[in-house]
Amino acid sequence: MFLLRKRRGIPGAAPGTLVSESGGPTKKVKMTVVSYSADELEEKEVESVEECFDYVGKREVTWISLDGSQDADLLRQIGEKFGIHALALEDIISGGQRPKLEDFGEYLFITLRSPRKPEATSSIVAEQINILLGPNFVITIHDLSNPFEIVLQRIREGKGRIRSMKADYLLYALIDLVIDQHFPLMESVADQIEALEEEVQENPSSEIVKKIRDIKRDLILTRSSIWPMREVINGLEREEPRLIADATKIFLRDVYDHTIQIADIVESYRDILSEMFNVYLSVKADNTNEVMKILTIFASIFIPLTFVAGLYGMNFEFMPELKWKYSYFAMLGVLVLITLAMLRFFRKRGWLGGKRG
Amino acid sequence: MFLLRKRRGIPGAAPGTLVSESGGPTKKVKMTVVSYSADELEEKEVESVEECFDYVGKREVTWISLDGSQDADLLRQIGEKFGIHALALEDIISGGQRPKLEDFGEYLFITLRSPRKPEATSSIVAEQINILLGPNFVITIHDLSNPFEIVLQRIREGKGRIRSMKADYLLYALIDLVIDQHFPLMESVADQIEALEEEVQENPSSEIVKKIRDIKRDLILTRSSIWPMREVINGLEREEPRLIADATKIFLRDVYDHTIQIADIVESYRDILSEMFNVYLSVKADNTNEVMKILTIFASIFIPLTFVAGLYGMNFEFMPELKWKYSYFAMLGVLVLITLAMLRFFRKRGWLGGKRG
Amino acid sequence: MFLLRKRRGIPGAAPGTLVSESGGPTKKVKMTVVSYSADELEEKEVESVEECFDYVGKREVTWISLDGSQDADLLRQIGEKFGIHALALEDIISGGQRPKLEDFGEYLFITLRSPRKPEATSSIVAEQINILLGPNFVITIHDLSNPFEIVLQRIREGKGRIRSMKADYLLYALIDLVIDQHFPLMESVADQIEALEEEVQENPSSEIVKKIRDIKRDLILTRSSIWPMREVINGLEREEPRLIADATKIFLRDVYDHTIQIADIVESYRDILSEMFNVYLSVKADNTNEVMKILTIFASIFIPLTFVAGLYGMNFEFMPELKWKYSYFAMLGVLVLITLAMLRFFRKRGWLGGKRG
Amino acid sequence: MFLLRKRRGIPGAAPGTLVSESGGPTKKVKMTVVSYSADELEEKEVESVEECFDYVGKREVTWISLDGSQDADLLRQIGEKFGIHALALEDIISGGQRPKLEDFGEYLFITLRSPRKPEATSSIVAEQINILLGPNFVITIHDLSNPFEIVLQRIREGKGRIRSMKADYLLYALIDLVIDQHFPLMESVADQIEALEEEVQENPSSEIVKKIRDIKRDLILTRSSIWPMREVINGLEREEPRLIADATKIFLRDVYDHTIQIADIVESYRDILSEMFNVYLSVKADNTNEVMKILTIFASIFIPLTFVAGLYGMNFEFMPELKWKYSYFAMLGVLVLITLAMLRFFRKRGWLGGKRG
Amino acid sequence: MFLLRKRRGIPGAAPGTLVSESGGPTKKVKMTVVSYSADELEEKEVESVEECFDYVGKREVTWISLDGSQDADLLRQIGEKFGIHALALEDIISGGQRPKLEDFGEYLFITLRSPRKPEATSSIVAEQINILLGPNFVITIHDLSNPFEIVLQRIREGKGRIRSMKADYLLYALIDLVIDQHFPLMESVADQIEALEEEVQENPSSEIVKKIRDIKRDLILTRSSIWPMREVINGLEREEPRLIADATKIFLRDVYDHTIQIADIVESYRDILSEMFNVYLSVKADNTNEVMKILTIFASIFIPLTFVAGLYGMNFEFMPELKWKYSYFAMLGVLVLITLAMLRFFRKRGWLGGKRG
Repeated sequence: MFLLRKRRGIPGAAPGTLVSESGGPTKKVKMTVVSYSADELEEKEVESVEECFDYVGKREVTWISLDGSQDADLLRQIGEKFGIHALALEDIISGGQRPKLEDFGEYLFITLRSPRKPEATSSIVAEQINILLGPNFVITIHDLSNPFEIVLQRIREGKGRIRSMKADYLLYALIDLVIDQHFPLMESVADQIEALEEEVQENPSSEIVKKIRDIKRDLILTRSSIWPMREVINGLEREEPRLIADATKIFLRDVYDHTIQIADIVESYRDILSEMFNVYLSVKADNTNEVMKILTIFASIFIPLTFVAGLYGMNFEFMPELKWKYSYFAMLGVLVLITLAMLRFFRKRGWLGGKRG
Repeated sequence: MFLLRKRRGIPGAAPGTLVSESGGPTKKVKMTVVSYSADELEEKEVESVEECFDYVGKREVTWISLDGSQDADLLRQIGEKFGIHALALEDIISGGQRPKLEDFGEYLFITLRSPRKPEATSSIVAEQINILLGPNFVITIHDLSNPFEIVLQRIREGKGRIRSMKADYLLYALIDLVIDQHFPLMESVADQIEALEEEVQENPSSEIVKKIRDIKRDLILTRSSIWPMREVINGLEREEPRLIADATKIFLRDVYDHTIQIADIVESYRDILSEMFNVYLSVKADNTNEVMKILTIFASIFIPLTFVAGLYGMNFEFMPELKWKYSYFAMLGVLVLITLAMLRFFRKRGWLGGKRG
Repeated sequence: MFLLRKRRGIPGAAPGTLVSESGGPTKKVKMTVVSYSADELEEKEVESVEECFDYVGKREVTWISLDGSQDADLLRQIGEKFGIHALALEDIISGGQRPKLEDFGEYLFITLRSPRKPEATSSIVAEQINILLGPNFVITIHDLSNPFEIVLQRIREGKGRIRSMKADYLLYALIDLVIDQHFPLMESVADQIEALEEEVQENPSSEIVKKIRDIKRDLILTRSSIWPMREVINGLEREEPRLIADATKIFLRDVYDHTIQIADIVESYRDILSEMFNVYLSVKADNTNEVMKILTIFASIFIPLTFVAGLYGMNFEFMPELKWKYSYFAMLGVLVLITLAMLRFFRKRGWLGGKRG
Repeated sequence: MFLLRKRRGIPGAAPGTLVSESGGPTKKVKMTVVSYSADELEEKEVESVEECFDYVGKREVTWISLDGSQDADLLRQIGEKFGIHALALEDIISGGQRPKLEDFGEYLFITLRSPRKPEATSSIVAEQINILLGPNFVITIHDLSNPFEIVLQRIREGKGRIRSMKADYLLYALIDLVIDQHFPLMESVADQIEALEEEVQENPSSEIVKKIRDIKRDLILTRSSIWPMREVINGLEREEPRLIADATKIFLRDVYDHTIQIADIVESYRDILSEMFNVYLSVKADNTNEVMKILTIFASIFIPLTFVAGLYGMNFEFMPELKWKYSYFAMLGVLVLITLAMLRFFRKRGWLGGKRG
Repeated sequence: MFLLRKRRGIPGAAPGTLVSESGGPTKKVKMTVVSYSADELEEKEVESVEECFDYVGKREVTWISLDGSQDADLLRQIGEKFGIHALALEDIISGGQRPKLEDFGEYLFITLRSPRKPEATSSIVAEQINILLGPNFVITIHDLSNPFEIVLQRIREGKGRIRSMKADYLLYALIDLVIDQHFPLMESVADQIEALEEEVQENPSSEIVKKIRDIKRDLILTRSSIWPMREVINGLEREEPRLIADATKIFLRDVYDHTIQIADIVESYRDILSEMFNVYLSVKADNTNEVMKILTIFASIFIPLTFVAGLYGMNFEFMPELKWKYSYFAMLGVLVLITLAMLRFFRKRGWLGGKRG
């Protein structure tokens, strides 16, 4: 079921209990540190949380990236070293969170949902991404493969202003990437809608309704993750400047506009799909109507004719018409007249001819 | 009727009148006291309210649990001893309350609704649970059997932070349990939806619409209890720190997020079920269309043929064709041609072949 | 028309014009004074407003009850004696008011709508009840027969706290009665829904849709009077303690919860009825489908058979089959085969047998 | 198109450009001055704005009424004399305004929409009425014939408090009249709904849907003018007491209640009409079902009979039954049995008899 | 796909990256400067940003108009000269923005969407228009041909107050033009609705549903651009008077009213179109019903007749009726009686005659 969030352990378990969803770290968590300032850059794959922690403060910004959220031990160590609240750690490991922003004073805990479409025909999925923002570090924890490669590339190349800004700008860059990923997805939804549009008129089968339903689900999912992300960004804009500088807030406002834009698109597409269902219903009704008309025309024309034919098939001994020489031909004439009258009746109603009424 | 709240005694009765719904205590109310601090733990089944009251203040937290809400005498005694307002007692005994939080200054009165699904195929029911929170005690009153066993177990085992925290944390643990009970229920709803999904396409009978209706009712019920619980938790977060400490509020915020998440799930499922009804309607319409087409094809092909056969069944004396030697075979040929023409007509319209149009 | 509020005199008439709806006092207005304190109680039917007025202040609370709201003269006298604003008097006499609270400083003017169901099968009607609350008096004006009998009884018996409280508590008791009257009505609606539930599946006639409509109207009416009453009670809670004491506000909060509960029930029932209409539509569509299938089965089986029979009814002179000895029985065999083939065709489609597809 | 507001001149034209809609004053504008205080009253038709202006301040209240809003010159003179902003004048002359309140400091500019139903069967139209309120004058500008006759009459007769109040009370009286005009219109809508109610069951033609649509349009129009008027009155209540005295605000609160009441009625009627459409659909579906059943009953009974008759109309030489003496009567018996079996089949399904299933 | 906003470059690209949508300036950007005060006016097509910049401050207002938004180099130069933030420049070049107002302190950045209908039958498109407002200059950047010609004409002619006002009034004039362009478009939508209205009753084909869908899309698009524009204007009204003078705000309030009016019209039209779909469905259902009735009448009348005829076409040797002299005529009489009985049956049901039931 696409929308069921993962179950949060056993109801009533002590809060902050770190039990991984999959029963333990199924894969080795890859830990990478990127430490940079305007002039320097160091990028290293590390083995222990100790090693990570030593980087913090060494340069302007330290970005610690964990590719894997299910290693409870590792998270516990991070929690201890960086002073992260047990509830935040539980939210990371349990997954299935609604995007949210929590201000723990010393640091911010942000969960986002990064939308992806594994294949062209599959549904959209939205994977959880956890971000911790401290005064001079950013920790990202997720189960995707290199979701932030593009931002990392920008840091490596030192283009733009990212190297000369603080950790909050890195946070912005990451959020901006997650939000902007929605645009190509919405484009692909638009393509699907466009394709359906033609199909609905040419071949209105119930397959189309299933496709409409599938797209609507994608939109429901997108809406249910974009709205809380909007709140997250709004919350970041209202943060005190200690963790989020005013200069960064101008950029956040821009991302905020994008979330509204995506929400608008989602709503418009839902409206369009509802209209499309109406068109489907009416095309379908037209088809049924046409079937009915063909049946009615055939039946109405031939049933009277058959009756007349049956009439003269009777074996009564005294049926004067049967004896007359031309009565057969007269009767054929009558049948033609009846047929013409019926055709005229249906033509007047507009049932004949190319146009469907 | 699943949604009718129990009637609140006679309209116009004096408020605070304690009349049990069932006309009196049908079963003996089991009263248990759990008194604990970080180091000590005492758990005892007691007989009188006096005895209960003596425990209060003995250790950090005293949790009094009443398994049964219909003993008016007992409630009156508790009211007197603990100084509980008559209206709160009336709400406990009358049941059928909307979840709410009332601040009586000295203590908080909270009613929740604990959702359960007695059997896999039955509807969700939401039983009332009443909680009174004082500075150092929690009183829980309900008609369920051990709804809080898991929390009790955590206290007994002393794991996690529950033993080292105050009464407000116990309150949090109880609410958290009630809220998290929704997740497995929503999972089971998701399973039902998934099963329906297949059924709707293979066997679209009106049974499905009844099942959709039943699930929608479960969702309506869940929504109508989760929304006020959200308000309750929100209210607790805004309480002054006298009864609810700031440390506990971080945990409440987490539960609050869960309620929003559940509300989101409920709304999404409702949307999905509405879409499913659309698919049902369209599959149904396809079926009707197919029936119509079969009828039309049969009727349209055979009615003209029958007419022709009837024509030559007539008993006119002068029907030249009847005398010709090969006219029978010629006519059979004509009938075959008519049939082929009709089949071509229907094939062009796409009515024949495997695909349903 | 059940929802048309009575017309408010001639548009443009001077505000405060006291013209009774029915053109004058059709019945003699019965005026009763109940004057009480914790120890004393006097209950008397009085003749003049003068006499009423003398009671005010004599004991803690004076409750003046007017059974009849159409005597313009009487109202004018009350207006003068008690200093009531002309607009309030106009609202009383014109009836058809939306429930509202108006604070005139010296006194509060409250209109409520008391719901009743004259007969088990009839629609809900909501009659206007007007209440004026002064510092030590309550005036109730209405056209119902003894709507507050139960409260009066409580005063007479002196049970509960009503006799020891002020006029604001009397106001609370009256409002509480009006609000709680909704519960049995909602129960009866629930019974109606439950009955419909079965009927919709056994005998889905358009009568059911009319019944659904009637219940929906009751719910629309209830909602349109319960929402403003919720605002009235909310307004009373926000009043300064001069007219409404804080102790009374705890009770009002309780009534407030009841109004929300009723509003919740109304919304849930509306949702349920909408679902029921969907079930109705699908059961109906199933029935139509079944009719169509019966027709199609009969027509499709017999039309080809009839054609074959017609074929050998032709009078061609040279039809070799007619001469063969066993051709009649051979043909009967062919007809049986055709029939079996058709039956198999329909059975494969699942049209035969008990299950409806 | 009933809802198209008149076009506001050429887009991009300089604001405040006074171009009359109709290209100039098609009729001579009648200007009337009513100047009054508690004791005095002067009413005069004047020719020039100069003359009007001289009246202002002469007595307590000066009411200038312009029957005609299309004389740009006249408006320009009024603008200059009374210091009215060009935008207000433009709004007057261009018409088609949404009701609104604009506070220009020295004066208030109010536009309302006065609803009328030219004929019993026609749609509701809502004509713009412009009111300017200064400290001691009221200017009304409109294209209706004597819309305020009733208020004028009250001033002439000096009944009620209107003569003893200031200009703001006159404003209130005018607004009250416009709002109260909705009640008889809603009553007439209620009558229409009631008439439809019967028709929908007796003769459910698509004419009814058109009538429902027409009433819904009236309601849409009413709603789209009543909501902004509600805001206008709300805005007046919040005005500083310089232009609107507190005593008048009590009266405005009353009108405000009326606007909410009308909005409530409109919403209820819309709900009722939607339900009526559901009833229409179900009655219609019942009718179709009945047609189908009649067809099915006739076809299913006679098609097998016809086949049997056709069977014995065959000309095979060896058909033993044809020779037996009583086979004709035996066959008639068989036909009767088949017919009875079919009738029993349909009766069991409940298709026969008075009740429609 | 009409509603897909253009993709914003590559997700994760550095913010402020100026990459033109079309891969570069496809056409030469025409740059025009209009510099004016109450007395002077200079209008010149310039070649370089330098040249533009020199005009600023020369007279009261400098209006720089760029016909083309895709020249990244040019925008970068403007950004440097006028101190425009990189994000604003990115929004200009990427296009597809939601209308918004951003206050960068020194200047305001406004994006609008100007609606146009390229041809009478085509859909509405809404092109982005970018406006930068500084203390004494306005820069407009867009891809349309002379969208502001009318305002320019007013400046040239010096009519109205535009020449004597500051840059903020020019901004107002431009916004007013964009908003007022909606009125003729809505008028044309009204014409389309009116035409559909007739068509839906005369020829209810599924083409109409497609037309309804197309108009609804136009309305969805208009709504999705008018709502944010409303917010933009509301934001401008709340700006500090440094950039927007109070005198201009009165005019902005007027434009604000227009946006609400357009939003109202859009909502009303959507309601009307939904009603029209209901009428369509019911007319369609009437037609189907009529087809069914014709079929049923023909079939029900002739099937019994055919049976009777078939009965006497049987070849039994002993059929007494066949021998009687008048049995043929007797049978004809019986057939006529059956026909009359059937006609009477259908007439009673109201199926015959002009009225459709």
